[in-house]
Amino acid sequence: MAQNHAKIPRATLKRLPLYYRFVNTLKSKGIDRVNSKTISDALNIESATIRRDFSYFGELGKKGYGYNIDSLLEFFKSELSDSDNIYIGIVGVGNLGRALLTYNFSIHDEMTITEAFDIDSNIIGTQIGDVTIHDMDNLKEVLESKGINVVILTTPENVAQKVVDNLVEANVKGILNFTPARVEAPSSVQVHHIDLGIELQSLLFFMKNYSN
Amino acid sequence: MAQNHAKIPRATLKRLPLYYRFVNTLKSKGIDRVNSKTISDALNIESATIRRDFSYFGELGKKGYGYNIDSLLEFFKSELSDSDNIYIGIVGVGNLGRALLTYNFSIHDEMTITEAFDIDSNIIGTQIGDVTIHDMDNLKEVLESKGINVVILTTPENVAQKVVDNLVEANVKGILNFTPARVEAPSSVQVHHIDLGIELQSLLFFMKNYSN
Repeated sequence: MAQNHAKIPRATLKRLPLYYRFVNTLKSKGIDRVNSKTISDALNIESATIRRDFSYFGELGKKGYGYNIDSLLEFFKSELSDSDNIYIGIVGVGNLGRALLTYNFSIHDEMTITEAFDIDSNIIGTQIGDVTIHDMDNLKEVLESKGINVVILTTPENVAQKVVDNLVEANVKGILNFTPARVEAPSSVQVHHIDLGIELQSLLFFMKNYSN
Repeated sequence: MAQNHAKIPRATLKRLPLYYRFVNTLKSKGIDRVNSKTISDALNIESATIRRDFSYFGELGKKGYGYNIDSLLEFFKSELSDSDNIYIGIVGVGNLGRALLTYNFSIHDEMTITEAFDIDSNIIGTQIGDVTIHDMDNLKEVLESKGINVVILTTPENVAQKVVDNLVEANVKGILNFTPARVEAPSSVQVHHIDLGIELQSLLFFMKNYSN
């Protein structure tokens, strides 16, 4: 299914997790359909935007009926991965890596960090929760044998690009970069950047413009 | 200056930190002007969007000249804060809090986490880097005496709302929420949410649609 539809626009994709989460919440409350007005009010996104976004999801809302919750959830899940469980690797087990290894991804329990890597011989072989820390030297071998193609990057900034090069070589297709480094990868590899400095600046800009 | 202009649209504000960072990089290279085409190529944002955004910055680019780097930087800085240094608090000194206390905000050296709070008597009074951990009981008193109105939230999910209520009472105007909890605050308080589950889902959606 996911292979056949046209590419979903990037702006829509960015909102997809919000929709997913909200629809999931409705499902857990036993609700079986929802209209764009309800979603609009809950997520603070314009109804017209929601209707346009949802037209990509193969589910056309019917007037007076709305969208079917189960169909939406099935679609969202198919867009997330072909398999039911998503295993994720993490490179760099400093404070931030440790925090993510014990982070509660809450409703997203289909996503689990199962492999961690570091270069520090003091922690290689030790365990955090259920995860044993591997030697970076075994990166490619472990990721390939476990079929992992999504990796979180929490190394020091100065080695980020080198690690990304290794990840690309290990056929990783998605990288969530928590380091301040701007890293380069082939266009076939998706790199999302969580830059905490940028997030803080953004908050300050909003405070300046939208706080009374 | 920042008080007099019209509100900058939210979509523009979200891009502002990217512009700020890029223009800063140009400045450090000794460049004194830049045109929208250069910014467009570097940040992968359409030129038309850039020209519209920059029209809010009180700096109208001149054809064949472009934008003046120093004027832009002065504007960005004025939008960040009225003072030169921005002091930030953090509540919750677990793994993630510790990671942020030692995070290198890189070029944003005007922003510093200077106060940390926790309820654990084993760590209250101890120091991480230059920051001493305060007792949560002294939250309002410390924040007000230091004039801090921006706080990072890294508590357990189940106490997030209670802490937010305390922060609002302490006149905090901006909260960067790292917990999975959806928290409520008055509209005069800006709350930005970094939800790691959402970020991972978003990455997976992009991998599905835009990786070859």
